[in-house]
Amino acid sequence: MAERGDREAFVTLATNDTYALGCLVLGNSLRQRAQTTRKLVVMITSGVTQPMRNQLSRVFDMIYDVNLLDSRDAANLQLLGRPDLSVTFTKLHCWRLTMFDKAVFLDADTLVLQNVDELFDREELSAAPDAGWPDCFNSGVFVFRPSEETYDSLLKFAMSQGSFDGGDQGLLNMYFRDWATKDIAKHLPFIYNVVSQAFYSYLPAFTQFKDFVKIVHFIGATKPWHHPYNTATKEVTPLPESGHNKDYLQIWWDIFMTLVQPTLDPSLREQMGGLVGELAALSLQSGVTCGGSQAHLSEQERKLNWERGQVDYLGADKFDNIKQKLDQSMKGPGTEGVDFSSTPFKGTSSSISISVSSKAKAPNPKK
Amino acid sequence: MAERGDREAFVTLATNDTYALGCLVLGNSLRQRAQTTRKLVVMITSGVTQPMRNQLSRVFDMIYDVNLLDSRDAANLQLLGRPDLSVTFTKLHCWRLTMFDKAVFLDADTLVLQNVDELFDREELSAAPDAGWPDCFNSGVFVFRPSEETYDSLLKFAMSQGSFDGGDQGLLNMYFRDWATKDIAKHLPFIYNVVSQAFYSYLPAFTQFKDFVKIVHFIGATKPWHHPYNTATKEVTPLPESGHNKDYLQIWWDIFMTLVQPTLDPSLREQMGGLVGELAALSLQSGVTCGGSQAHLSEQERKLNWERGQVDYLGADKFDNIKQKLDQSMKGPGTEGVDFSSTPFKGTSSSISISVSSKAKAPNPKK
Repeated sequence: MAERGDREAFVTLATNDTYALGCLVLGNSLRQRAQTTRKLVVMITSGVTQPMRNQLSRVFDMIYDVNLLDSRDAANLQLLGRPDLSVTFTKLHCWRLTMFDKAVFLDADTLVLQNVDELFDREELSAAPDAGWPDCFNSGVFVFRPSEETYDSLLKFAMSQGSFDGGDQGLLNMYFRDWATKDIAKHLPFIYNVVSQAFYSYLPAFTQFKDFVKIVHFIGATKPWHHPYNTATKEVTPLPESGHNKDYLQIWWDIFMTLVQPTLDPSLREQMGGLVGELAALSLQSGVTCGGSQAHLSEQERKLNWERGQVDYLGADKFDNIKQKLDQSMKGPGTEGVDFSSTPFKGTSSSISISVSSKAKAPNPKK
Repeated sequence: MAERGDREAFVTLATNDTYALGCLVLGNSLRQRAQTTRKLVVMITSGVTQPMRNQLSRVFDMIYDVNLLDSRDAANLQLLGRPDLSVTFTKLHCWRLTMFDKAVFLDADTLVLQNVDELFDREELSAAPDAGWPDCFNSGVFVFRPSEETYDSLLKFAMSQGSFDGGDQGLLNMYFRDWATKDIAKHLPFIYNVVSQAFYSYLPAFTQFKDFVKIVHFIGATKPWHHPYNTATKEVTPLPESGHNKDYLQIWWDIFMTLVQPTLDPSLREQMGGLVGELAALSLQSGVTCGGSQAHLSEQERKLNWERGQVDYLGADKFDNIKQKLDQSMKGPGTEGVDFSSTPFKGTSSSISISVSSKAKAPNPKK
């Protein structure tokens, strides 16, 4: 019989190469800093390129391809009529990782500071309160039991109820709706999902409890990788508009520069433009400040923010813009041919495949 | 034997005439809008004037004078060495209301939208999560059991531990420290203490749950009474920096203008300057916009904000300023003569007296 460490996994998700950088740092934080004994899984969509997939396989034990609108799903035809739900459904695929008895989902913009393997002693669905509306849990960190039955049930629920925030958090909070009132054991302490801006909203509590923080969550549109980093001083410059705590940003960048960036295939620089190429090229220069602009925010990143309920309500994501885009699309030659690539809703159709990385690092010995 | 409605009370606190306006609106929201069957108690300090005390007696069943450093407290001598705790202790006096079996404390900047008498079915200490650090409860709304023993115990605890946020919230969270992990029944749903800015931090959840909101809490330095109100249009103008929801501000002002302002003694206008006088005079004018500046924030209001953990860390309340003030005072002729009136720490010494208002309205018949 397999060891417990083999039947339990941390799971994350990358929908493009930039978020994959977040996954690489997260994976290293789990393995190197937190010394986990459990498996690491990254779910990826077709937005992740082959070179980046190779990078991910150096850190994660398993790469799990999820592509939306899998022909297996009985609900597919309905889904075709609900493009707005396809993004939400990406994360739900984690319930299909039935090779594991239990798993902990972590968003790509989280960072693990201390060992959190004790999370596997919790039951589904355990999660920490969301700082914005604390009777909802934040779906950036949660304990769950993979199950095809639960997956189907979630899908059906989504189809009939939708999601009040247009993302997985609204959906999961409605599905696991007794979380706020039923069982205190399913309330993960906030230290397992501390928003990096918490020091701003209640500084004394942050000061009191900061040494206990185990997982940091960089919510908001501006992620650690958008911050300016100086390769000479090895220091990150916090962007006031992001509100992220400098110490946490620095830990993210320290891990990135010591454990991720040196391993990045130099070809990424040529093959990929944008932020990923820029970060891959960093070592070739010295004393250079990299990053530092929200202009880096791609459509796909905006989509991810939308998914998290972090919607730019008055800007690009405002209702009028989205309605206009949908109206435009509806006038097109039919749903199949609709290009949602420039809206937050991008659906692709292919099958699901699993590939266990051959270069995965051996898990640490069990504690 | 007394009816249950007579043995249970809502309790609030005013430390000056401006906060007393908040208490008047809160009391009316409980009595008129929410139709409570329980008693209403307001605790006041010497910062509340006699004319305002008369006003409070029109709404509250009981006025409870609390003055710091009561000679009864065994711990007084120690307290004299800890002026920083005296503000914190004001709210703790609610535990001494032992003429009640159970009580619900409500900050003066809360507003009750629907009947919440079911709160008396909860046990001590029940409270809702604080949106800033949701493993702490917010001490603006809590259910408690008055008890001299608990009061003494809280006082001793405060003396030995202090408060991590310099206010009652930090102290109460340390004293009732198993709140986050022990009993889900002591987690009041967030709808019993919704920060008025919640729509900003997680709009979809606010939209989803706003019809269920029962108590609104106007946290932050800018209170409803600081907002401009136009007597011709009967509309309040939200101040962007306060972040308060306009609908809630409007409800506060509607109650103030219909139930409080018309009853204000016109003499308040002459006897009191500042915001209270201005609001008392409102009916004499027409089409006038009143209020609307944070410049109205008095030292005492700043003290209250401090008490709530809403400290202006970089401004007037910054450590250097406070240390300087304390140093200055320590050089004075002894603690008794120290004038803390211009610091957030004002200690006075007199005794506690209880006066049951003769003009208190008869409680509503039991439901």
